[in-house]
Amino acid sequence: MGQTLTEKILSEHLVEGELETGEEIGIEIDQVLTQDTTGTFVWLQFEALGLDEVQTEVAAQYCDHQTYQFDFKNTDDHRFLRSAAGTFGAHFSRPGNGICHNVHKENFAAPGKTMLGSDSHTPTPGGLGELAIGSGGLDVAVAMGGGPYYIEMPEVVNVRLEGELPEWSSAKDVILEMLRRLSVKGGVGKIFEYTGPGVETLNVPERTTITNMGTELGATSSIFPTDEETREYLSRQGREDVFEQIGPDEDAEYDDEIVVDLSDIEPLVAKPSMPDNVVPVREVAGQDVEQVIVGSCTNGGYEDILPAAKMLKGQEIDMKTEMIVAPGSKQASEILAREGWTAEMMAAGVNFSEATCGACIGIGHVPASDSVSVRTFNRNFEGRSGIEDDSVFLSSPEVAAAAAIKGELTDPRDLADELGLDAPGVQMPDKYNGSKTDLIAPDEAVDDELVKGPNIGDVPLKDPLDSKLEGEALLKMDDNITTDHIIPATQDILMYRSNIPKLSEFTLSRVDDTFAQRALDSDGGFLVAGENYGQGSSREHAALCPMYLGIEGVLAQSFARIHKANLFNFGLVPLTIDEADYANIEQGDDIEIVDDVAEAVDSGQEEFTVRVNDDWELTAHLDASAREREILSAGGKLSLTRSQYDAEGAAPADD
Amino acid sequence: MGQTLTEKILSEHLVEGELETGEEIGIEIDQVLTQDTTGTFVWLQFEALGLDEVQTEVAAQYCDHQTYQFDFKNTDDHRFLRSAAGTFGAHFSRPGNGICHNVHKENFAAPGKTMLGSDSHTPTPGGLGELAIGSGGLDVAVAMGGGPYYIEMPEVVNVRLEGELPEWSSAKDVILEMLRRLSVKGGVGKIFEYTGPGVETLNVPERTTITNMGTELGATSSIFPTDEETREYLSRQGREDVFEQIGPDEDAEYDDEIVVDLSDIEPLVAKPSMPDNVVPVREVAGQDVEQVIVGSCTNGGYEDILPAAKMLKGQEIDMKTEMIVAPGSKQASEILAREGWTAEMMAAGVNFSEATCGACIGIGHVPASDSVSVRTFNRNFEGRSGIEDDSVFLSSPEVAAAAAIKGELTDPRDLADELGLDAPGVQMPDKYNGSKTDLIAPDEAVDDELVKGPNIGDVPLKDPLDSKLEGEALLKMDDNITTDHIIPATQDILMYRSNIPKLSEFTLSRVDDTFAQRALDSDGGFLVAGENYGQGSSREHAALCPMYLGIEGVLAQSFARIHKANLFNFGLVPLTIDEADYANIEQGDDIEIVDDVAEAVDSGQEEFTVRVNDDWELTAHLDASAREREILSAGGKLSLTRSQYDAEGAAPADD
Repeated sequence: MGQTLTEKILSEHLVEGELETGEEIGIEIDQVLTQDTTGTFVWLQFEALGLDEVQTEVAAQYCDHQTYQFDFKNTDDHRFLRSAAGTFGAHFSRPGNGICHNVHKENFAAPGKTMLGSDSHTPTPGGLGELAIGSGGLDVAVAMGGGPYYIEMPEVVNVRLEGELPEWSSAKDVILEMLRRLSVKGGVGKIFEYTGPGVETLNVPERTTITNMGTELGATSSIFPTDEETREYLSRQGREDVFEQIGPDEDAEYDDEIVVDLSDIEPLVAKPSMPDNVVPVREVAGQDVEQVIVGSCTNGGYEDILPAAKMLKGQEIDMKTEMIVAPGSKQASEILAREGWTAEMMAAGVNFSEATCGACIGIGHVPASDSVSVRTFNRNFEGRSGIEDDSVFLSSPEVAAAAAIKGELTDPRDLADELGLDAPGVQMPDKYNGSKTDLIAPDEAVDDELVKGPNIGDVPLKDPLDSKLEGEALLKMDDNITTDHIIPATQDILMYRSNIPKLSEFTLSRVDDTFAQRALDSDGGFLVAGENYGQGSSREHAALCPMYLGIEGVLAQSFARIHKANLFNFGLVPLTIDEADYANIEQGDDIEIVDDVAEAVDSGQEEFTVRVNDDWELTAHLDASAREREILSAGGKLSLTRSQYDAEGAAPADD
Repeated sequence: MGQTLTEKILSEHLVEGELETGEEIGIEIDQVLTQDTTGTFVWLQFEALGLDEVQTEVAAQYCDHQTYQFDFKNTDDHRFLRSAAGTFGAHFSRPGNGICHNVHKENFAAPGKTMLGSDSHTPTPGGLGELAIGSGGLDVAVAMGGGPYYIEMPEVVNVRLEGELPEWSSAKDVILEMLRRLSVKGGVGKIFEYTGPGVETLNVPERTTITNMGTELGATSSIFPTDEETREYLSRQGREDVFEQIGPDEDAEYDDEIVVDLSDIEPLVAKPSMPDNVVPVREVAGQDVEQVIVGSCTNGGYEDILPAAKMLKGQEIDMKTEMIVAPGSKQASEILAREGWTAEMMAAGVNFSEATCGACIGIGHVPASDSVSVRTFNRNFEGRSGIEDDSVFLSSPEVAAAAAIKGELTDPRDLADELGLDAPGVQMPDKYNGSKTDLIAPDEAVDDELVKGPNIGDVPLKDPLDSKLEGEALLKMDDNITTDHIIPATQDILMYRSNIPKLSEFTLSRVDDTFAQRALDSDGGFLVAGENYGQGSSREHAALCPMYLGIEGVLAQSFARIHKANLFNFGLVPLTIDEADYANIEQGDDIEIVDDVAEAVDSGQEEFTVRVNDDWELTAHLDASAREREILSAGGKLSLTRSQYDAEGAAPADD
């Protein structure tokens, strides 16, 4: 039986398990990518693991999210990341050099490789036949240390492209069409493999627009085969040596198939406030537009901005509309400037930004209230732009430029008729001749030790689980406590994400602002909660911060799934109790687990006796897999990984 | 007796008074300038005055401080400012079009004109023979309404320039030398008039660097005569029609004279953390530099950035140093891009920012902790960069570029020797051919009514002073209460500066966070304070917010000078009381002024009888000039001006 391209790459990297859909597999990782908002914690965990050198073929640290550096903490983070990259052997992309996905595509993406990245749009290099997956920071740290990455084998879906895009339709419209059909949940647990005769009609930058925004389908990854277009792109980047012709076998069997006829695609937009809320732009033509932004990892390449530049040359943007162009990389910025397009766009009224994620994550260029913003980004979730009740439309650069010229949403084909514009097409430059000054290779590193500003702390490690757990019920909470209650996600608090002692001061402050100090003052202690404790986001800090404060366990009627996993990962014992016992425990009660907890967890024991105020007893339950028990016993996943390394005398090699 | 240039311009604009040093004069204003952080309140006051059209020859509203638009409040402010400019007849410079001083210089500055601006670097166009003065927002609003501007006639100081600048020395070094000699207080109450044979060796962009940073001397303004260089600059800007040859009479008498031999000037820097802390750069050579920024209203022109670009072409900035170039205007950005310099600087590792004040006011690119930043700006006050304990050096673009290349402070002459660099000189482009898309003239206005986002309120107006003042002593405070106690200046609070109801919630919250609500709930009331009440900044909101909350008067042992003037301006009665009476009054006491207050203020009465708790009496004193009594009586300066307009049936014409 033939293999899909996904299966071929996974087979070559398989360390554990079998390629059966839904089965856990362990794969070797060739490349890792980290950015500035997740990277600091990845490197702190790498340090805490006791590792001293990156083991992957490529590790690259980018600074792209907070490059406006509003606060010294941002600038300190960048300096720390440079020092971490230098110390541990990663490439360092300086702030202003561009968005991780764009710069990685330009410099490192290679057919047949695997990549793990601590950013959800990590799958972008799939457009060059690289299998790239986004993950949590600790997984990235472990992969950098040479450890395998574990994942359930996804379904592989064949997306068969036929025909060719008409003029004024773009790769962005292809992925918007996918979202229109499949919805933002349509890709969960799946890898989309693009095949068919339409593939060769798309160049690599167009393919990476599609693979990038596959994330919005909820997909694990998206991937294209390689061909002469891939070779051409790599050649113009001066990297033809990494080219490899790869693709699925002709008789490959897929879990599912979707057919997209490119010739049917017309200019689309995603209306507020979900990327799958897609309609033809003509259906919403006439909508006033106050702001237009071209950029992001989806549409921030030279090839994305050039069509907009061609449309804008000799035109003026509407006086009621602001237009910002934020190239995805300095390479794109430099080539656009060198070819004169930057000056033409400025003459038309465009503001040029440095190469940054910026507005895509609500950093800068927040829309005015009650206004419409058209953006070439990948997400328009409500409030993401930085203002609640926002109205953000997602579109191609062509649709965005047309909106800027008209001051309203308009089908670019209509604008072309009106102004006599030629269809701009999508061209790569003859040579991607941007400077590489801002990418510091490991052998050019300028640091050999970590530089930590006052906001950058260490990652706390927990000792192995004690035999004896006892302490005060420090806080009794109601049902449905969210991770936002546990660690608020507002900007003023999130900037402390590399500073666990400081961040921990905010733990559960929305429930009781005396809690953090009381917990620190106690020697251990417990949380008590009702149903569905820890619902909400997957934020690891909601377990890490209570752990830092000395909390040893949580007694709750029930736990949200992801938060429970995080409690294991940070070594806190999650015990379920029944409603009557929940009602009887009061804040301030003395809690004692009568069993030898360490031994009981190891042995698979499920029932635990809890003594309250040395007065009455209840039975609590531990529902945990063997793997979770191993993690809990070691004091959390970081402690477990570290002890495994210690036992082996080194980071595990890729066997 | 001959006249100085300053006297000539003032004579032509004199409405009231005589040109005697120290005497109050009233002058007609030809041009006004407002920017985004001060402009919203200027226009709200313009609206509150009941005016409906700008009366000055030119009024220009710029958006330059908050152009990164971190918060919808910034974007809403810009939209409001566009609507105000359109509604009332001002030019509107869109966000991203550049810093007010740069854009004004390019488009409006004209020899012999007077200008008032709500920004401290308003004197910049003095480099073209315009007499430009910075002032508070209400003065600007009144001037826009056609009213005269009142000021004490400053001393006029002759700064005689001799010789010619050597290679690698620049106009920035000239003004740094002035600061070295005179200190940041050396220009208080003075206008610096540049004369002598050295003038013609400097082109207009060099002259405006000097007049711009005259502000750091504390000067009221700085001015150059006009000549063929002025004509040349205006001609290349397409504005030769406004050229006029003006200068002092040969026998003009000055209050003082300073001689600067340009040929003695060498590359200088202002060390942290004061602009007058000036030394030759060679004395601090070798100092590591982590960040370099070229830009600002002082050195953000094409002519300022070009020397840095020439030095950087073919070089790479040091890997430990970040360099940002933030052009002062989009005109500069566009010409640099069109001529290829932007691409060359990017290739060297520079990050390009949009044209904005940005980092100069701590917005973006905040230095890392314990690091050195070299900036071509005009101020390096401690903490201004956005981090406390910062180390900011001020320099010319040549010194800044040299620091970026070397990663340390270095005399550019030494770097030139080392790398074989030619001295870049200072050239204007043949033609300032940037687009004017982003400058919307009054006759192109896109708004004809004010657009106020939810954060933009009205300016509260106070009724004329009552005859009867009585109410509770709502807050009793100690000595030395500062304006920071009254209205904190932190960023989270300052963003409400156009929203007095919201801002007022923070009034005196540092003393008693129940105060604002208690004041609102009361019908009138008093503040009681010890010595030196209201010390600190000149912030008008420290009087405006208590006024909004209904406070009618302040009983204090003594008042800080500027705050007392602000209390008059916003209609609050400032009464001094003695120490014993201060000690006897308690918070919550009922306060009643026994006299007919309105009549007593009008009649010049100084002693007032205050009855406390209907139980005992004290004598309070009002120390106020006739003008201050008139303001107080009318309910504040805004109410007074408005009632004068009402009486005249219109805004006063320029008689």
